[in-house]
Amino acid sequence: MNTIPYKTYLHETELPEAWYNVRADMKKKPAPLLDPTTLKPVESSALEKVFCKELVDQELDDTSPYIAIPGEIRDFYRMFRPSPLIRAYFLEKALGTPAEIYYKFEGNNTSGSHKLNSAVAQAYYAKAQGLKGVTTETGAGQWGTALSMACQFFGLDCHVYMVKCSYEQKPHRREVMRTYGADVTPSPSMTTEAGRRINEAHPGATGSLGCAISEAVEAAMNREGYRYVLGSVLNQVLLHQSIIGLETKTALDKLGVKADIVIGCAGGGSNLGGLISPFMGEKLRGENDYRFIAVEPASCPSLTRGRYAYDYCDTGRVCPLMKMYTLGHDYMPSASHAGGLRYHGMSSTLSELLDQGLMEATSVTQTQVFEAARMFARTEGILPAPESAHAIRVAMDEAVKCRESGEKKKIVFGLTGTGYFDMFAYGKFNDGEMKDYIPSDAELEESFRKLPKID
Amino acid sequence: MNTIPYKTYLHETELPEAWYNVRADMKKKPAPLLDPTTLKPVESSALEKVFCKELVDQELDDTSPYIAIPGEIRDFYRMFRPSPLIRAYFLEKALGTPAEIYYKFEGNNTSGSHKLNSAVAQAYYAKAQGLKGVTTETGAGQWGTALSMACQFFGLDCHVYMVKCSYEQKPHRREVMRTYGADVTPSPSMTTEAGRRINEAHPGATGSLGCAISEAVEAAMNREGYRYVLGSVLNQVLLHQSIIGLETKTALDKLGVKADIVIGCAGGGSNLGGLISPFMGEKLRGENDYRFIAVEPASCPSLTRGRYAYDYCDTGRVCPLMKMYTLGHDYMPSASHAGGLRYHGMSSTLSELLDQGLMEATSVTQTQVFEAARMFARTEGILPAPESAHAIRVAMDEAVKCRESGEKKKIVFGLTGTGYFDMFAYGKFNDGEMKDYIPSDAELEESFRKLPKID
Repeated sequence: MNTIPYKTYLHETELPEAWYNVRADMKKKPAPLLDPTTLKPVESSALEKVFCKELVDQELDDTSPYIAIPGEIRDFYRMFRPSPLIRAYFLEKALGTPAEIYYKFEGNNTSGSHKLNSAVAQAYYAKAQGLKGVTTETGAGQWGTALSMACQFFGLDCHVYMVKCSYEQKPHRREVMRTYGADVTPSPSMTTEAGRRINEAHPGATGSLGCAISEAVEAAMNREGYRYVLGSVLNQVLLHQSIIGLETKTALDKLGVKADIVIGCAGGGSNLGGLISPFMGEKLRGENDYRFIAVEPASCPSLTRGRYAYDYCDTGRVCPLMKMYTLGHDYMPSASHAGGLRYHGMSSTLSELLDQGLMEATSVTQTQVFEAARMFARTEGILPAPESAHAIRVAMDEAVKCRESGEKKKIVFGLTGTGYFDMFAYGKFNDGEMKDYIPSDAELEESFRKLPKID
Repeated sequence: MNTIPYKTYLHETELPEAWYNVRADMKKKPAPLLDPTTLKPVESSALEKVFCKELVDQELDDTSPYIAIPGEIRDFYRMFRPSPLIRAYFLEKALGTPAEIYYKFEGNNTSGSHKLNSAVAQAYYAKAQGLKGVTTETGAGQWGTALSMACQFFGLDCHVYMVKCSYEQKPHRREVMRTYGADVTPSPSMTTEAGRRINEAHPGATGSLGCAISEAVEAAMNREGYRYVLGSVLNQVLLHQSIIGLETKTALDKLGVKADIVIGCAGGGSNLGGLISPFMGEKLRGENDYRFIAVEPASCPSLTRGRYAYDYCDTGRVCPLMKMYTLGHDYMPSASHAGGLRYHGMSSTLSELLDQGLMEATSVTQTQVFEAARMFARTEGILPAPESAHAIRVAMDEAVKCRESGEKKKIVFGLTGTGYFDMFAYGKFNDGEMKDYIPSDAELEESFRKLPKID
């Protein structure tokens, strides 16, 4: 009998009572958001035209280490949390590694991913403010599904702009959102000024998160009683997602396991930021040391090949500017199968942590990712989302290094979601028809030229 | 704070060490299987040409109350078991019922259902016997997916005949099976004698479990080192699935809850039989009383409108005959969206329990089912499979009766799986285009005329 179980479930009474705000422990804070019209630090009054008030406060608060989780949100969390921390015994055996591999599995809910953690918080605050509804964008569809579920629960309208290539590859995702009462529009659409502009500039565009954000923001600002909500990139999202890391830390502590490496996939940073936050807090306070690895797609390599600069968060330039690792707000990533990672920028908090050398970043191609995904599905019995499989790939690579060195490292990664709506992509891979795309330096240079001149 | 948690997870050390065989406690046993050529009770030697030896022993054993679960199977179970018992607080609130509703959720694994419980057992015994591979049929695709996962794990070939209407509605199901290395053929196919005969008799047939079974059995018997495995109906399957009921009983006992009503959907009986077995054992031994309700589709009503008679298990009449509630082996159910419940017969054990008045049965239409499914998805946050939603419908109806009577009944039902691959069906429902089909008495009489004359 193993002393460490396959699955560790915390009891629901152990559900964290507060989110952890990693910015509070950062000596050098992430740079402030800038107003897109004045290029000065944005006022909260301006942000409150786009976002819910309470969420703006959370966005700007870089000093409170803990923020209490309201009771209604904790009740909703009990539907699907605490999520399990799983020891990958079968994968370890298949790799022949002396390393111990653990993963925090966030896919055991109908939205299929960790996105529900922030969706329910954002819907709750929107309802508490007396709003009628919210608008948002979705890439792979996980965030849109999560928000649909949360809005249905709190009785809010939900309008989702879904990146067109995902909309077309995943009609069933749309149907899940409709089952939860949401409206879903493929983006770029002709229903907004921003969408029409993008369609004209890039005819036949397959869309990007950057485009869809512009459309959703515009739609929110044009409707009485609506606000815009976002599933990644923002500080508030990392705050809500810290529940992943808090539960992971509690479970590891109970098992008596000290992680050596913590790995997460990174698109806008929601999962990675949430997973690493409490561990990073210990590192920032000098209590413990960890290696952190962000894994991004080689087709959209903001952390590994982007510039650390102020840039627009959205293609339509209606949102505030953020200092972050970016490929340029006009960068149109190739239509890869990890729709949730096709964002030109990155959370400003994670960008700052990378810049300070507190975190590493690496990139992998999608065929490497699907090889890892299939092996993981076959050994661990969970079919991962392509996004999540970015982290699996690097966890496996680190475990193989341990096989070579004989080190018994403790590797922890975030398994953000399941791939049930990604079977079109798996089919391409199964048929040997999956292609990789890596942008050229010239292509990136061209995109960097459009970065705003600030500083 | 609630005294009963939302989710009760047993620790993996509480995983049952033996399956429970309800036949051991039945005074009047299910009638024996008959050989299709001699119409005499079948010899185990004849069954062993079709099934694995150990599984034949389990099939015929109606005296051992407990059969130990081999260690390798228990290890595999730890991937996804113990499964949670969930208190439906949100659904209770939405219904305004004083009843307590509990459901055992079997959908938290990549096959998406309880089918994995028996798939891993059957694959294990096939491997232990030194076989090369197995063949099977699948309706909704849940059993085929489960078997693909289990075969991949034990290094066995897996050939799946998938009912054609599901194959066409669910291309992504096929892709999951392929990802796990299985071959998938739509049934009726032209690759077997049985398939060709059915295609000739019913041109354009959308298939049925009865057809697909004939094809899979024929394919197994024509290949060296192959056997046929079945995901429902058989006693061995109910035995393996008893793990659902055993865990449910242990969890309820720990919570101090005595169930009043236990409800399950019924196609061939795998989930219902497994869920109710330990509770039925108490009833048979006079230790406790429970109401048991089998829920079947109105379009395929074997328990509520079928005959209790010997019949062939498959359309091609290659399998042994079984005494069961049946609509006739030639009955071709309408192409409903609960592919897993489109079987003309029913487990002989459950049939006998119904005949003895120890269990009740009821039927519901698919629009009633999808209404319940959507309400459940919106309140409890889990999108159910259409099959599972049959049980939800009746659990909700019983809870509403309690609202009217003021009774605080404890209602337990089996939530067998998730509906992520059923979004085509949800789409039809969301668009208001779902139709119900209820066979006429004349249609059933016509089908009963083909029942074999035995007794």
